[in-house]
Amino acid sequence: MNFDDIITLDKADPLAHKRAEFALPANTVYLDGNSLGALPKVVKSRVAEVVSQQWGEHLIRSWNDHQWIDLPTQVGEKIAPIIGAAPGQVMCCDSISINLFKLLSSALSLNSGRNVVLSTEANFPTDLYMVQGLSDLLGEDLCQLKLVTEQQIAQSLTDDVAVLLLTQVNFRTGQLLDMHTLTQQAHDKGILVIWDLAHSAGALPVELDNCNADFAVGCGYKYLNGGPGSPAFLYVAKRHQAAVKQPLSGWMGHAKPFAFDAQYQGADSVNQYLCGTPSVIAMSALDAALDVWQGVSILHVREKSIALADLFIKLVRSQSCLVDLYLCSTEDSTQRGSQLAFAHNDAFAICQALIEKGVIADFRAPNILRFGFTPLYNSFEDIGNAVTILTDVVQTRLYTEPRFNKAGKVT
Amino acid sequence: MNFDDIITLDKADPLAHKRAEFALPANTVYLDGNSLGALPKVVKSRVAEVVSQQWGEHLIRSWNDHQWIDLPTQVGEKIAPIIGAAPGQVMCCDSISINLFKLLSSALSLNSGRNVVLSTEANFPTDLYMVQGLSDLLGEDLCQLKLVTEQQIAQSLTDDVAVLLLTQVNFRTGQLLDMHTLTQQAHDKGILVIWDLAHSAGALPVELDNCNADFAVGCGYKYLNGGPGSPAFLYVAKRHQAAVKQPLSGWMGHAKPFAFDAQYQGADSVNQYLCGTPSVIAMSALDAALDVWQGVSILHVREKSIALADLFIKLVRSQSCLVDLYLCSTEDSTQRGSQLAFAHNDAFAICQALIEKGVIADFRAPNILRFGFTPLYNSFEDIGNAVTILTDVVQTRLYTEPRFNKAGKVT
Repeated sequence: MNFDDIITLDKADPLAHKRAEFALPANTVYLDGNSLGALPKVVKSRVAEVVSQQWGEHLIRSWNDHQWIDLPTQVGEKIAPIIGAAPGQVMCCDSISINLFKLLSSALSLNSGRNVVLSTEANFPTDLYMVQGLSDLLGEDLCQLKLVTEQQIAQSLTDDVAVLLLTQVNFRTGQLLDMHTLTQQAHDKGILVIWDLAHSAGALPVELDNCNADFAVGCGYKYLNGGPGSPAFLYVAKRHQAAVKQPLSGWMGHAKPFAFDAQYQGADSVNQYLCGTPSVIAMSALDAALDVWQGVSILHVREKSIALADLFIKLVRSQSCLVDLYLCSTEDSTQRGSQLAFAHNDAFAICQALIEKGVIADFRAPNILRFGFTPLYNSFEDIGNAVTILTDVVQTRLYTEPRFNKAGKVT
Repeated sequence: MNFDDIITLDKADPLAHKRAEFALPANTVYLDGNSLGALPKVVKSRVAEVVSQQWGEHLIRSWNDHQWIDLPTQVGEKIAPIIGAAPGQVMCCDSISINLFKLLSSALSLNSGRNVVLSTEANFPTDLYMVQGLSDLLGEDLCQLKLVTEQQIAQSLTDDVAVLLLTQVNFRTGQLLDMHTLTQQAHDKGILVIWDLAHSAGALPVELDNCNADFAVGCGYKYLNGGPGSPAFLYVAKRHQAAVKQPLSGWMGHAKPFAFDAQYQGADSVNQYLCGTPSVIAMSALDAALDVWQGVSILHVREKSIALADLFIKLVRSQSCLVDLYLCSTEDSTQRGSQLAFAHNDAFAICQALIEKGVIADFRAPNILRFGFTPLYNSFEDIGNAVTILTDVVQTRLYTEPRFNKAGKVT
């Protein structure tokens, strides 16, 4: 495949026009949108307006006049169609970690009599840490974390399991779990499922309602482009909303927050999962970022995501000097999210050298080089350029220079 | 006191120059900084830089290059001197509600064998709701909320009390509790104290270390001017840090977050109170807002706060038509925070009419009209103008017009 072939792919891309809606740095191929999404241009003006006009000029009145109070619901409802959720089930609030604590508590309470939270060894650490925190608080009689491999999930759905906690797309390998089948298998054993959509929401079609999902959490700052540390979201299936409660019962989740009752009474909707006052600036940024999705077919996103990743693999395979890059992700694109992971003993240094050369990927300990594909702003030309530079970095052994072996705090 | 006398007060005010550092709306007297602080001008450029440059241009690299990862500590250390805390004890994170949950869990765990969380009936509701949420989760054997009046606190410090949870300045009346004495009395009975500084941090001298305080939480968006829903902060006294743990054990509180261990191990510092990824935009806004405090003496802030409130009372008392405004706050300024509460049967409508006339106060159910005084940007002239307009609104019975009796969602 030569350069002209790649340009042809971009010309045929139904999402190609979306790239212009993002403020992308010059001379950069950004393949880390799975870690931090790029900046939608509309966010700049929205944030400036929220700060200067809504806060600066209208001050406290903006809670009503600019509907700040409705932001968690409004943003939740914008996310809902992206994750296959009907209205009234998604709320934007807090972080994934905090939201997991709420949902774990809810699910364990709905399934009292069972105590095991089953998850995978390869799950994103904070998901496991939140179970550990709840387990320390409640004791193992009420909450016990059990870890298995992704292959062992189905056979581990035993009668003591209260909650199955899974991340749909593995943060390292990009392995995509079968939400429909696993949810069904869990339900057959009386197990509730919490799905972490951090690496799937906005990356591929998620069908929470169709899968009869119970609960989910997800991230605002990866494929949804809400900005660094953007508020997260959660999903609570309508059928559970009358029965659930959650312990982070802050005033924003009260049925009547501004009655200032001394007694908590949670809203009888997904609103009860709100806790404290949300950051209006941060949530407004995400709200604006979600407008980029207007008119976008998530099926087109998925098709392009697969095409970008497959092209990346093909081009890497065509370079003999890249033979030591071991593909940890499956080659079966139907089993994969929107990222590729390659193991290499010098993954950290290669990643740093790539960054210096303008290809932004990331490193995950101990030896993973990770490339994320974001169809709204990545082009096929990006992929061609990235592999050309990767080839150069490895062929010339540029990455062995000492400056590429200094780790920052964050990797 | 005539207009010239008031202008003289402004001329002698050592904080008068600070007003120019805020972007205040024209023709407005803003007396609601106790609910939402005004916009420091420096925040506009900082937020624009974080969005356009740090996020837009430098993307994921900014976690290291622009020290995003250090923001919770950096902001915490800027807040520390304002609340009388030596370094290494304050962290900016999450909301007050979430932070209370962490600290309540920590304090109950340190004081196991006791189960009562003692607080006041008049405390801000979310503080009580968070105890109720924890109590529902753990059961009353481990966590039981007991409410008393502010006058009954001292006599209620019994042997079953594990934690005393107090808001230093009452959100309705502005009543200021004696942190030094109450902390001492609690400690004498083996009780740990959590102070909520929502209405005191930045409003008056808080002396956490000098009072031998155990734990505290506080708000970024009131007197610290961090913007709507700004991240909150918490304080954990150095002497407790080796022994405490907290259940919201997200990855940012891990001793080595980027090692991606499957097993949680909390940092052995106040960092363990971090949970998920913080909003960089929101926290940067607060970080910039705190720079307004450079060179400000909190003693000057306190002196001016008292002078503003005393002038307000004096001017109200000088108007016979305002006799039905019943001052619920104490007249003893040493016992008061930086706000005044007046009860009136038509408080809601009067508040709405004041807002239309450019005096921004707020209403708290059922019948409280609340005026907050923020010495960094309120002038004595503001107070004169506010009482003139208040007099006009009441004398002409403007507030009885129907448009002033329509409540928004947020009051």
